Amino acid sequence: MTRRILTVTLNPAIDVTYRVDVLRVGETVRVPDVRSRAGGKGVNVAAVVRALGGESVVLALTTTRTPDEFADGLAGLGLAHRLVPALPAVRRTVAVVTRAGGTTMLQENGFPAGGTAEAGIFTALRAELAAGAGAVVISGSVPAGLAADVPAKLARLCARHDVPVIADVSGAALREAAGSGAVLMPNEDELADLAGPGLEACEDLVAAGTPAVVATFGPGGAVAVTDRGAWRARPAEVVSGNSAGAGDAGAAALAMHLTASEVDWPVALADVVATSAAAVLRPVAGEIDADARDKWIPAVEVERIR
Amino acid sequence: MTRRILTVTLNPAIDVTYRVDVLRVGETVRVPDVRSRAGGKGVNVAAVVRALGGESVVLALTTTRTPDEFADGLAGLGLAHRLVPALPAVRRTVAVVTRAGGTTMLQENGFPAGGTAEAGIFTALRAELAAGAGAVVISGSVPAGLAADVPAKLARLCARHDVPVIADVSGAALREAAGSGAVLMPNEDELADLAGPGLEACEDLVAAGTPAVVATFGPGGAVAVTDRGAWRARPAEVVSGNSAGAGDAGAAALAMHLTASEVDWPVALADVVATSAAAVLRPVAGEIDADARDKWIPAVEVERIR
Repeated sequence: MTRRILTVTLNPAIDVTYRVDVLRVGETVRVPDVRSRAGGKGVNVAAVVRALGGESVVLALTTTRTPDEFADGLAGLGLAHRLVPALPAVRRTVAVVTRAGGTTMLQENGFPAGGTAEAGIFTALRAELAAGAGAVVISGSVPAGLAADVPAKLARLCARHDVPVIADVSGAALREAAGSGAVLMPNEDELADLAGPGLEACEDLVAAGTPAVVATFGPGGAVAVTDRGAWRARPAEVVSGNSAGAGDAGAAALAMHLTASEVDWPVALADVVATSAAAVLRPVAGEIDADARDKWIPAVEVERIR
Repeated sequence: MTRRILTVTLNPAIDVTYRVDVLRVGETVRVPDVRSRAGGKGVNVAAVVRALGGESVVLALTTTRTPDEFADGLAGLGLAHRLVPALPAVRRTVAVVTRAGGTTMLQENGFPAGGTAEAGIFTALRAELAAGAGAVVISGSVPAGLAADVPAKLARLCARHDVPVIADVSGAALREAAGSGAVLMPNEDELADLAGPGLEACEDLVAAGTPAVVATFGPGGAVAVTDRGAWRARPAEVVSGNSAGAGDAGAAALAMHLTASEVDWPVALADVVATSAAAVLRPVAGEIDADARDKWIPAVEVERIR
C-alpha cells in the first residue's frame, strides 16, 4: 500500500515568531527578529510525515487573494499541496519567544470561509484519493462559515474509499467525527468532553463504531483502544521543550502505521509516543529530533491492558 | 497659504489590534477579535490634520507586492496618498488590548528598504511640493536600507522650497535633522539625548539654526523655543488613556499653525498641548476628541519664559 499521506487543514495559519529579550504585559517591546512560515496542524503533520520517510500532500483552504503567503510558505517548506482558495485571508498565530525561555502564543481564530469552501475541499480530497492515498489526517479547527460536521463528512468520504483516516479535531467537530469511520486522537480534556474520562470512554467509542481511539496524555504517554485489544504506552523519559507540535507528530507517526494492511498496534503506539516526544525537543512545530525518536522507540514501555 | 499638509512616513506599518480578556506571559490566548489598519506616525498625523479641517497627503514607502494592504488601508481611511513601492513587506505592530485595560505593544522594526527607496521618496516629495504644500511633517523611524540622514535631506528639500517642515524623528535621524531647517519635536528623552536637558538645550539648537524646537513632556505640557522668544504651556487637566498617538496629534496641530505667514507661537503651543491631550482620550492613534480639544485650547496656561 502507498505510504502517501494526505493531510487536511481547514483553518490554515501563518505562524509568526517574534524573538524578544523580555515580554511584559502592558509594556511596548520592539521586535527585531520576525520569522514566519506556513502553519496549521495539517501542515505540521505533513512535515513530520516527510521526516519519517513518507510522502505527504497538504490539502488546505487558503486565501482568495494573491500573492498567497501561505502557498508561498508551503512551497518554501518543499511540501506538496493542493489548495482551495476560499478564505478572505489566512489567520496568523504569533509566538512571542523570550530569551528567558517562556513563549506566549496569540492565536487568531481565523476568518470565515466563503460559500465555495466545502465543495472545494471535497473536490480536492476526491482528486487526491483518486491519485492514491495510504492514509488521511484531518487536523485542527473548523473556521467560521463551515459546519462542525465537515471533518466527519470528509472522514466518511475516506472510509468509503477504504482509506484509513485520522480525525485530530476537538469540540463539536470531534463529537461529529465519532462514528464517521475516523480514528480519533483526543487528548485528556477532549476525551473527557467527548465521552467521559478513562479507558471505558474509549471502549464506548469503539463499541459504537470508531475503528480506534488513540488518547494522548502528554508526558503521561498514550492509550490505544481498538476492537482487537487495548494498549498503554509510557515514554522512556519525560522531556521538556516545545509541546506545540507534539500531537501533530504523533498523528503523523500513526498515519504511517495505518497505511499497513494490518496495523501492529503496540508498535504503532510506541511510535506515536516516541515521535511526539521527539517533536518536543525541536523549537518549531513540524520538526522532530530523528535520533531521539530512534533511541526512544525501543525504550517505550507498552503494556496490554485489555 | 494652502493648509495642505504633506506627511512623510519612511517606515509604515499595519497596526493590528488583538482584543482578548487576559494576556499572561508564557500562556496561549485565543484571539477572536482582530482588527487592522494602515499605521505609522505620518499616517496618524495625516488623519489628525483632516480632523482639524486641513487637507493631508500621506507620502510613504510601501511594499513592492500586490495587493498592498497598506495602500488599501489608506484608501479605507479616506486618506490621500502617494506611495513609493520599495519595501519587501510592510511591518506589523500588534497591540494586545486586554479587558482589564492594559495594552501590550509588539512593534516589528520593519523590513529593509530597497535601493530605489531614497530616489523614490524624493521624487514623490518634489511632486507634492510642486502641487502646493503649506507644511510637511516627517515622522517616525528610518527602515534599514536607508541612511539616518534621509529625513534631514528631505527637510532641506522642503526648506529650499520655503515650505515649513517638522522632523518628528529620534536617535541618529534627529541628530542629522538638527540644522536641516526642520522644526524639531523631541520628547524629554530625545531632547536630552540630542542636546542635553532643559531650556538651554533648545536654545542651543535654535542658536545653531533650527527654526524652532517644540519639546513635549507628555502630561507636563510642552515648551516652544524660537528666535523670537520661548513659551511654556501646561495642559488644563491631566488625562489618562492611550498616549500612542499623542505626539502625532501635536505634530498635526503644529503643522497647521506653521502654514500661517507668521506663526503665533503661544497660540500654536496651546493647540499642540490641547490636541495631544485630546488624542489621549481616543483608543486609536490618529483620532482626537474634538470637543475636548475645543474646551481645552483656551484653558491651556501659556507662559512666556524668555
